[in-house]
Amino acid sequence: MKKVNVAIVGTFGAVGHEMLFLLEKRKFPVGELRPFGSSRTAGKEFLFNGQKYKNIELKCQPGEFKGIDIVLSSPGASVSKQFVPHAIKDGALVIDNTSAFRMNPDVPLVVPEINAEDIFKHKGIVANPNCSAIIMLMAVAPLHRRNRVRRILCATYQAVSGAGMTGIEELERQTREIAGGLTPTKSTFPHQIAFNVFSHNAAIEDNGYNGEENKMIQESRKILHDDSIKIAVTCMRVPVIRAHTEVLYLEFEKPMKPEEAREILSRAPGVDLQDDPKGNHFPMPIEASNRENVLVGRIRKDLSSENGLALMVAGDQLWKGAALNAVQIAEEWLKKA
Amino acid sequence: MKKVNVAIVGTFGAVGHEMLFLLEKRKFPVGELRPFGSSRTAGKEFLFNGQKYKNIELKCQPGEFKGIDIVLSSPGASVSKQFVPHAIKDGALVIDNTSAFRMNPDVPLVVPEINAEDIFKHKGIVANPNCSAIIMLMAVAPLHRRNRVRRILCATYQAVSGAGMTGIEELERQTREIAGGLTPTKSTFPHQIAFNVFSHNAAIEDNGYNGEENKMIQESRKILHDDSIKIAVTCMRVPVIRAHTEVLYLEFEKPMKPEEAREILSRAPGVDLQDDPKGNHFPMPIEASNRENVLVGRIRKDLSSENGLALMVAGDQLWKGAALNAVQIAEEWLKKA
Repeated sequence: MKKVNVAIVGTFGAVGHEMLFLLEKRKFPVGELRPFGSSRTAGKEFLFNGQKYKNIELKCQPGEFKGIDIVLSSPGASVSKQFVPHAIKDGALVIDNTSAFRMNPDVPLVVPEINAEDIFKHKGIVANPNCSAIIMLMAVAPLHRRNRVRRILCATYQAVSGAGMTGIEELERQTREIAGGLTPTKSTFPHQIAFNVFSHNAAIEDNGYNGEENKMIQESRKILHDDSIKIAVTCMRVPVIRAHTEVLYLEFEKPMKPEEAREILSRAPGVDLQDDPKGNHFPMPIEASNRENVLVGRIRKDLSSENGLALMVAGDQLWKGAALNAVQIAEEWLKKA
Repeated sequence: MKKVNVAIVGTFGAVGHEMLFLLEKRKFPVGELRPFGSSRTAGKEFLFNGQKYKNIELKCQPGEFKGIDIVLSSPGASVSKQFVPHAIKDGALVIDNTSAFRMNPDVPLVVPEINAEDIFKHKGIVANPNCSAIIMLMAVAPLHRRNRVRRILCATYQAVSGAGMTGIEELERQTREIAGGLTPTKSTFPHQIAFNVFSHNAAIEDNGYNGEENKMIQESRKILHDDSIKIAVTCMRVPVIRAHTEVLYLEFEKPMKPEEAREILSRAPGVDLQDDPKGNHFPMPIEASNRENVLVGRIRKDLSSENGLALMVAGDQLWKGAALNAVQIAEEWLKKA
């Protein structure tokens, strides 16, 4: 099998770490592996496929990606803006997990189960969508294909891993501090996250929605190729480590019975139905963590809408919400490479 | 001032404890205090207004409430069904926090800021509504009075105190167990609550909604005296100690600007507006805890609806969601007693 030369940008970030793990787990045919990070993580060593590697400082200069086929990138958006033009000139395809290029009309925004064909329209970049958008659409898209979704209302329960390693560390540290009778200290989040929930910390934009919410709205329309879907979302942080949960109310063009939705979702790729009313067992972040598929359940009629359904999803923010989706894009690309 | 003879049922429960605290804090003119509990808590002592009391075992027999004016009751619903008929015959007014009588057409279901006048239709019982319904309606009712709400969609973030003392103990114990590297043990909830969220543990009923959700729907219509409001809710548990948070999408009869809603809610009794987009500071359960007023904020247009608003609320489940609302009903009754 053809070997693929892979660069990672953000090797020691929460997502970069999972990208390496999943490349190994899914036996992606990595030839050369070139791992990049900030000056802070340069020189740090790690094992991949049993071999020792040393992290390289990314300088965002021409030539750093010569000989690389695929870049899996998850630094900050500002870093992606700097290095990606060079990587493209060096001949690599960048699969970028930041928001830097997602809404650029020339850049495909892809969830492989939904719009894999868009990958091949790329001009050097394929963007990996926002984690909450991916997880929501894994449930919405299969239903939308059968019976067009006209309106989505969503409330999220987002894990701290969305803020990277420091988000996870903050929840763990605050929990210890409170258990020890201390006042919890804050550094990553503006508010205490242990034993609390708060409106997502992304800045509030002009329309009153925060950056995370506007990403979910805009990116969902782009991925579904449907600008007419009406969407409102409320993004909230909860003290959960690494899987996002979302409550959804969907309105369809025509009536959709819960049984029909259940049947569609039970066969949808990348989805595990977890819908057990008798056992009161539905999607939960602890069960969605370290799971490749997204959990969907609590499918029932929206009692307030003629053509409406209520349901919930839970998906691993670091995997399907980020690293796994990026690796899957690389796998789709490889099929035709 | 006239003294009122008060009985408490469930003295050592999470709500009963707060009822006593609030009677003292709000200087309710308690004459005789007669504290009841289960056989398990009978004989247990506590202080009230500086005086020592001994808890009495409730036998659910005639005569136990002779001489009592007001019973503040928060045992299980099955206990209320047994003792309340006797208490009424004994001449007391029962303010019952259980679900036993709430939907009985002869029983007023009251949030004093919303429908205090219903108290005086009582035939011996006034029911205290479900905690999530009270907290939601504190935001909805003032808006509904100005511009009728036609549809409510809600997702909750409910604290463990809703399951009583054992719910709080379970979250604290599981947090310690996980921090110590142990497998969390379960006794009150069917699923791990520490670092997790799950669909509310109330049993799923025939319409696919759980008991908590159906209470919110039915009780809201009764309190607002409006059976035509369309409502769908999704109740979720989160690892938070004692305040419930709720995300709301409201559809009004006519357009309602966010500024108008903000103006109405800034003057609504029992409501504190916490709506600071620049500071990214909105209602949070840690700030709603041990606060009498309910926090309301994140008021913005529902981008998916012509006449819609999105907002959120957070309120102390044990106070406005239970004990405080019950004491406020007693205070309203006292004004005309």
